[in-house]
Formats: sequence, C-alpha cells, structure tokens
Amino acid sequence: MVNYAKMMDNVKASEIRELLALTQRPEVTSFAGGLPAPELFPVEEFKAACDAVLEEQGTVALQYGTTDGWAPLREQIAKRLFDKNQIKTEAKNIMLTAGSQQGLDYCGRLFLDPGDVVVMESPSYLGAINAFKLSEPNFVEVPTDENGMIMEELEKVLATTKNVKLIYVIPDFQNPSGRTWPMERRKQFMEIISRYEIPVIEDNPYGELRYKGTYHPALKSMDTKGLVIYLGTFSKILAPGTRIAWMCASDEYIYKFNLIAQAAVLQTSTFGAMAISKYLEMFDVDAHVAQIREVYKHRASVMVQAMKDYFPPEVTFTDPDGGLFTWAELPEYINTKELAAECLKYNVAFVPGSGFFPNGGNEHCMRLNYSCATDEQIVNGIKIIGDVIRKNLK
Amino acid sequence: MVNYAKMMDNVKASEIRELLALTQRPEVTSFAGGLPAPELFPVEEFKAACDAVLEEQGTVALQYGTTDGWAPLREQIAKRLFDKNQIKTEAKNIMLTAGSQQGLDYCGRLFLDPGDVVVMESPSYLGAINAFKLSEPNFVEVPTDENGMIMEELEKVLATTKNVKLIYVIPDFQNPSGRTWPMERRKQFMEIISRYEIPVIEDNPYGELRYKGTYHPALKSMDTKGLVIYLGTFSKILAPGTRIAWMCASDEYIYKFNLIAQAAVLQTSTFGAMAISKYLEMFDVDAHVAQIREVYKHRASVMVQAMKDYFPPEVTFTDPDGGLFTWAELPEYINTKELAAECLKYNVAFVPGSGFFPNGGNEHCMRLNYSCATDEQIVNGIKIIGDVIRKNLK
Repeated sequence: MVNYAKMMDNVKASEIRELLALTQRPEVTSFAGGLPAPELFPVEEFKAACDAVLEEQGTVALQYGTTDGWAPLREQIAKRLFDKNQIKTEAKNIMLTAGSQQGLDYCGRLFLDPGDVVVMESPSYLGAINAFKLSEPNFVEVPTDENGMIMEELEKVLATTKNVKLIYVIPDFQNPSGRTWPMERRKQFMEIISRYEIPVIEDNPYGELRYKGTYHPALKSMDTKGLVIYLGTFSKILAPGTRIAWMCASDEYIYKFNLIAQAAVLQTSTFGAMAISKYLEMFDVDAHVAQIREVYKHRASVMVQAMKDYFPPEVTFTDPDGGLFTWAELPEYINTKELAAECLKYNVAFVPGSGFFPNGGNEHCMRLNYSCATDEQIVNGIKIIGDVIRKNLK
Repeated sequence: MVNYAKMMDNVKASEIRELLALTQRPEVTSFAGGLPAPELFPVEEFKAACDAVLEEQGTVALQYGTTDGWAPLREQIAKRLFDKNQIKTEAKNIMLTAGSQQGLDYCGRLFLDPGDVVVMESPSYLGAINAFKLSEPNFVEVPTDENGMIMEELEKVLATTKNVKLIYVIPDFQNPSGRTWPMERRKQFMEIISRYEIPVIEDNPYGELRYKGTYHPALKSMDTKGLVIYLGTFSKILAPGTRIAWMCASDEYIYKFNLIAQAAVLQTSTFGAMAISKYLEMFDVDAHVAQIREVYKHRASVMVQAMKDYFPPEVTFTDPDGGLFTWAELPEYINTKELAAECLKYNVAFVPGSGFFPNGGNEHCMRLNYSCATDEQIVNGIKIIGDVIRKNLK
C-alpha cells in the first residue's frame, strides 16, 4: 500500500483541462478555452528565426544553459517591460519560466507554508488557484466590482487576517472577469501593500492586448519596495507552444526563484528562448501584436453584441477593454455546471464560474472566451446559450 | 519583513551549477560538468525536423497541447523502451517532462511529506538530492561497492527504517560513480522492493551509452507491481537544449503526475516535443547514438589511462562501462574542495564528491566528466590534478 504526500488530497483535475478534453470534438463551438487564435501565429517568421538560430548557434541552442535563461532574451524583455509597461528593470531581474504557470508555482513554493493565506480577487484565475494549492494555503477572497478589486475590502482583509503571505492580482483584462483596474485603484493598491509589506504577484499575460480605453502602467512600475513579482509571457503575444514566459522581481526574490528552479527543473528550453529572442530581433513583434489586437477586438465586440441580442435581461456580463474573456452572471438559482452540460448537448461549451472562486460557491457565473471562434460560431453559440438560459429562468 | 516558506531553509545553490559558472572561462579545462559533447549534436538534422514540423503542422506546434505531452512522441518512446530496455509499456503510461529533473521534482511532490525518508545509493546524483530537498525529507544512504548498491545493506535499511516513501537508484553508469548493477543485484533489488512495496525511481539517462560489457535490462522491465517510475531523457542521446524527457509509470502514478504537472506547469513545449518526434521519424537515432558511444568510449579510455599514468597509487577510481563519469577516492585526509580550488588555479576543474552524499561527509572524493574534452585536455588536465594530489599526500 503506497502512501502519497498529504498535499495530494488538495490536488484535483483542473475543470478547464477536463472540459477542454470534452470540447475537442470538431463539431463543438468552444468558448471554454483560453487559447490564442492559431491562425494568427507567425509560423513562417518563427521558422526563419529557428533556422537562423540553428545555423548561427546550433550547438549552443541544443546544449544546457543557465537557470535564469538565455541572457539576450532577458535583455530584450527588460527593454520591452520599460517600453510597454513603464517598468525600469534589468536582465538580472528577469528569470525565464516554462509559461507563467511555472512562475505561479515558484511563488507558491517560495512564500507559502501549509495554512498560510493567499489573498486573491473574487473571482480569480483557476490556474493560479491550482498552482497555489500545491502549497496547501488558505484562500481569502477580496470582493470586486466592475473596476476590479475593491481596495477598501482589501484593506479590511489585511487588517483582520493573520499570516497573509502573498497577494495575487490580474489588474489588466482579468481572467476570468475581463475587468481592468483604473489608475486610482492601482495607486491605492500600491499604497496599501507598501504599508503592509506583503509580496504581490502581478500576473499580466494580456496587458498588450488592449482594444479600447486608456493604457495604465503596471503595478510593478510603481513598486518602490521590491514587493511586486511581475509575470509576463510570450504565450498571448506570440505563441504558447514554446512555453517561454518570465518573472521580473527584486534581486533577492530572483535569487531565490533561481534556487528553486535549479532544484526543480534546471532551466527552460535553451532553443525555445533563443528562437524567441531571434524572432524579436528579426521581426516587428509590435506589428504582429497590433494584428492580434484587431482580430480579438472584433471578436470581443461580436460576442458582446450577441450577448446583448440573445441573453435575457436577467443576465449581466462584462464588456472587456482587452484580453480574451468576458464573464456573465446569471440569476443565482441557475447552476452553470448543469447549464454547461445542457449546452454541450447542443455542441456549445463554456467554463462554469465556480472554479474561479478559490473557496467555491458562485454556481451562477460563467466565463466565455472569444479569441478562438469565428463570427458565425460566436453568434450561433451565444444564441444557443441564451436559449438554454431562458429555458432555465423561473 | 517578508517571510519565506520554511522549505527554503533547505534549498541552497547547487555546487555544480555554481562551479560551472566559475569554469566557463575558455582557458579552463573542465571535468566538472555533465554536458554532452556539443560537436556531436545533429544540428542539421534537427533543423530539418524543425522545418518539417513548422511546414506541416506549424499552428499545432505553436499552440497549447495536453499535459501528458505530444501523443506521437509518447508512442515512439513506448516502442523504444521495449526495443532498448525490454520495458513493455504504452503511450498512456508515459508523461513528458522538461528534463528528468522535473520528473524528480514531481516524484518528491507526489510521495514526500516533510520528515519522510528517501533511500539512495551512497553516493548519488546531486540534482536528485536537491530536487527531493524541496519536499524536506530525511535521507538514508545505502552503502555501495564496485557493483553499485549492496542489497544486503538495502534490506537492513528497509527492515529498520520507518516512513521510507521512496527509493532512488541509477543502476546504469551511475552519476557520480560510473558504476553499473549486475543482473543478480537487479533481481535481488526487485525481490526486496516487491516485498516492501515501496515506490522506486529508476533514473536512466545514460543507459544507451554502454561502451563495453553486457547489457542488462531495466528494473522497470521486471516490475510486476507497478512500483517503478522509470525516468528517461533525450538530453544525452540527442540534445538537452529542448528539455524533453519522460516518466514511465503505472496508470495510477501517471494520473497523479499529470495532476501535479497541470497545476505546476501545464505542459512541456509542444514544439520541442514535435521536433524530437519528427527527428526520430526522419533520421536514424540509433546510428547517431552509436557515434556518441564511440566518442565517449574513446574519451573514457583516455581519461582512465591518464589516471593510471598520473594519479598516485593512493587514489582509486572507477573504469566505467558507459555513461559520462568516473569517480575517484583519495586518501581520507585530502579535502577535495580545497583540492578543487588549487586545481582551478591551474585552470583545471572537477566536482568535489561530498555534494553527492545527501548527508554530507566524504570530503575525499571527486567526480570527473570526460564527455566534453579533447584527448589533449584530458591528458594534461589529469596530469595537473595528479600533480596537485601528490603535493597534498602525507
């Protein structure tokens, strides 16, 4: 009889990944994933970058490298963080990770003992909840409104909760809600966490995908005490298939993340990092991102219009300024897990919302992704979901 | 004042990685690493494979994939495990990992609570010790001789130790000792662990790099109870730069490793896995491995001969049948950390042995790698180490 670590009691199959398996039948219109649109991947350009790397530095690309990752790419990331997010940083404060998911895991490992508290927006990213669960924390949720985390509520939580070791936030086009924090809230947030001196993860996978409204600087750009760990990724602006993302943090945190990475995985892919570095050198990634932005902006507007047209007035939903998701709240008596099963019979999929609340509940919400569907799929799919909702109205 | 997780008290910089940083000056002859010879990487062929993948399935290669990894590669691995290691398995029992290091981490996470016991050969792989330390276990070392782990000693340990949750072994061309278990010991081992029903990690990165002597089947091929987790990798037979390795284990273990991977990292690189799969399809990897084997065989023989010629008779060392390392034991009063510092003044590097003992001690040993040096470097380097040893003899 083999015994597993106690932590394993906490670890369950990700609802999204399980659902994605079900929705891979070609006849299903899926709003369930969070995949970037594959038809926008710069395949030709990426191939040219791979070829150049292997021609010029093939033996380096195929060899082991350093734990923090390919130095020229870290230089490029540091420069881009300043250009795009007003973050003043250096290559030495960047560590590459195999997707931001790995960065979340490293944060959990660095800061959390069992029973420690992680503070998150309510709702928040399911994948972050799952990553932190590996460290067996307790979760405290901070209420949100249409402008994201409510700072008075955060202040209340911090004033009354012991052992808060980590705060996890997504200020831009949040997953799952699609909401963005305005500038005033960002300032309030930084004032509060500077006072409490609690490490913060600012997860920003979608920041460059703003379709409308005003740009706001990253929390990390206002971080005078080195508390913010900024997570960025190439998954949404280039492609997720190489698994190259990064953490940007203080010297002390980066040193410790490197120790964890050394023991846990040695390093990210040398070749993957070099290929992305070469792509950035050879091609205009900003022009590429502009193209993605246009397509997603259109798809978001099609979905929001379809929800206006086909969802009953009892349903509220967000109209995101960027990112990949909208979030709908239904009457509280409607269970969206049951609704999802019913919609799947009509070959339409979405993710029920309760998984995005670390302490459960909120069975009446749903997350809808629009980045990967055609106009026709969006309109028809939303119409079907609307019909199923109506059937379930009291 | 930010607090870190208690586990972090355990986690220190890897001596090898720190040393490698010092030895990267071009004038240093380094026997310290464990790098494959980069001049043997099949760069052209790998480029052709990358091109084919991006031409034929570019949008798939750059997209997210499943947590267990690219299915056709797992099929190829299952077939190869039977051909090379007599392991009867299927793709569903394989999960890709970002290097075997990640597999070690997953094993620690699946089985170990703080204070649980890991049993290892004495000495054993430094990277495995570091990976397990993230789970805060206690280590119990089993004495070894020229044929690897002594089974009577293992039996004694298991009969008298509580909470043994995991046994970690490298039966082929062990890192660091270069030793291989003969068939009789493999049978004894499997008999013992079947009786105690304790999960075993069989780490086999070098198995295909046998230069001489008789082939022995993997422990996993004799595993009737699903206790053995076999770790294999492309790092040593192809290239480490894409970070593609695998775990082969029972349905139940693989299911749980998938849960951990989902939460910790989502998946390995889709593109990296597809490129390797395509390489295996397009080219004759066996012919490539044969070429590696010839080169390393030669380098191993040059190093062993040089040790015979230039080391004083007080030093004993192994003459490996394969793999990347030889292991030397000096008189106990010689401290190899001090010796390494002295040798580095003459621009020669090796790894002091004590790091390979999870409970420390054994300051009189050293690990020497020969895969990455020319004949001249090997002869001159060993001569210098021999001279420095002589100076330190009493």
